[in-house]
Amino acid sequence: MKGQILCIPCTVRATYDIATKATDNEELQMKAVTEVLKWLSENHNLLDMTPAMMHTYAFRLVQKITGNNDPFAQLKRESNRIAMKLSPLLRDELARLSFREAFRFAALGAICGNSIDFEVEGYEVTMGGLEESLMKCLRGKLTIDDTPKLMDVLSKANRVLYLLDNAGEIAFDKIFIEFITSNYPVKVLAVVKSAPILNDATMEDALQVGLNSVAEVVTTGSSSIGLNLDECSEEFLRQLGGVDLIIAKGQGYYESVTEIENILRKPIVYMLRAKCLAVAKSLNVHRGANIIKLVNY
Amino acid sequence: MKGQILCIPCTVRATYDIATKATDNEELQMKAVTEVLKWLSENHNLLDMTPAMMHTYAFRLVQKITGNNDPFAQLKRESNRIAMKLSPLLRDELARLSFREAFRFAALGAICGNSIDFEVEGYEVTMGGLEESLMKCLRGKLTIDDTPKLMDVLSKANRVLYLLDNAGEIAFDKIFIEFITSNYPVKVLAVVKSAPILNDATMEDALQVGLNSVAEVVTTGSSSIGLNLDECSEEFLRQLGGVDLIIAKGQGYYESVTEIENILRKPIVYMLRAKCLAVAKSLNVHRGANIIKLVNY
Repeated sequence: MKGQILCIPCTVRATYDIATKATDNEELQMKAVTEVLKWLSENHNLLDMTPAMMHTYAFRLVQKITGNNDPFAQLKRESNRIAMKLSPLLRDELARLSFREAFRFAALGAICGNSIDFEVEGYEVTMGGLEESLMKCLRGKLTIDDTPKLMDVLSKANRVLYLLDNAGEIAFDKIFIEFITSNYPVKVLAVVKSAPILNDATMEDALQVGLNSVAEVVTTGSSSIGLNLDECSEEFLRQLGGVDLIIAKGQGYYESVTEIENILRKPIVYMLRAKCLAVAKSLNVHRGANIIKLVNY
Repeated sequence: MKGQILCIPCTVRATYDIATKATDNEELQMKAVTEVLKWLSENHNLLDMTPAMMHTYAFRLVQKITGNNDPFAQLKRESNRIAMKLSPLLRDELARLSFREAFRFAALGAICGNSIDFEVEGYEVTMGGLEESLMKCLRGKLTIDDTPKLMDVLSKANRVLYLLDNAGEIAFDKIFIEFITSNYPVKVLAVVKSAPILNDATMEDALQVGLNSVAEVVTTGSSSIGLNLDECSEEFLRQLGGVDLIIAKGQGYYESVTEIENILRKPIVYMLRAKCLAVAKSLNVHRGANIIKLVNY
């Protein structure tokens, strides 16, 4: 998915949000915002970039200017902890369902993890609210639902590459991966970022939620939002070449992987909630729609 | 109120929103956004400007680039029409209340008008929703409530300058002005912008809702958001000098008039809903708080 004009104000706002997380020094915050304004106004091929690339630039700029390498560190650890507390809710529901229902439910759970805002200050106060919000999401529908096709691909696959999105939601991805490996004879490679970028899951997050007990956890070798093949390690590219199915979670991977579908030439399933207007438009759905979409099928 | 760093991404987003209303030509939209990025990145005194000044710059830039002088024209006319349809609800409630209750209710109504989003496409479908939203707002509270002081000032005043904010809500301002002039021996000057800026009320809007039947409608002589004395007409400045009370509606007037309170040196009452974080912070209230705040009292 190429960038849209709307991605420009969004990138400026993201810079502000990242900068205020990275430092309390308002001069540095202002410098970060000003530098991103300059970059965006000078770069005349913005609409050929993916939104993921614009936001990656903004994040790295804030890292450089503020000297804070991981502004979301605390948020990520706390998100994992809360999501793990919520996980039994999902498992209890799963246990009550038939196979087909459970498959869809576990997949939807992984998407719902993405839509729950774990950024809570008063944890004790809002845990009930988070539970409610999760259950509401789990009762929601899939606006694009390719789960039958996904089951078909899984039944023929050996190796699956699972591109993880944010800390927190990876606790729900773990449940989905567990479900897949229990029901299909596949090996799952769970992919995290090699270094901090936004609240994207890193190795530390994967270990915190115990993803290594259900999958081999690997990194892209890059800290780009989404997938930027130019930045990936040789090892990751080799792993990527050897899988039969790619599961791409979240908007960042949707934005970037859609641009290289013809290079990858294997089944890819996008699992996401379309949280922004540009992504929703590109999928021809309303904002907030839950999507499981299989391509190269 | 001076600008904050947060006002910068907000100005970029506003430029996008105005540009997409002004034209369907994406090249022109992109040009407007790029030009505002440049201006914001070059201007190193942004935090000495009011947010109202930043947004005024953005609007005029879009006017110039797109050639569309009044991107909100249709929205303004439709907002007036819908607000007039909703007005009887407010009047019915008013008729049931004691004087003090009615005063507070009419004032809150003028604030609620500002918080209702009249930007509806399917009018018939959402009229019920708008009614519900208005009634909910009218049952809300005033986080800062200087109505007793305001009554006191009104009982001693002769001439009142009422700075109007947006089209649509001016139908509710009309009800408040009617209430004031029925209960106090004051003359009200209702102030609109001299030319289009965002969805701010102009003379055309004032006439559409019949404001001229309850007040003398005048213009600032300027199309700035809020009040920019450098741009006002001599006549308006003369009128401003002769009043005993200024009623300043909405965020734009709050942002700009707070900077010149010591020049104006007369009672000013700010009536607004604090819709953005920067304004809420400056008033030390939560976002969405309803405010009636009197200064120079």
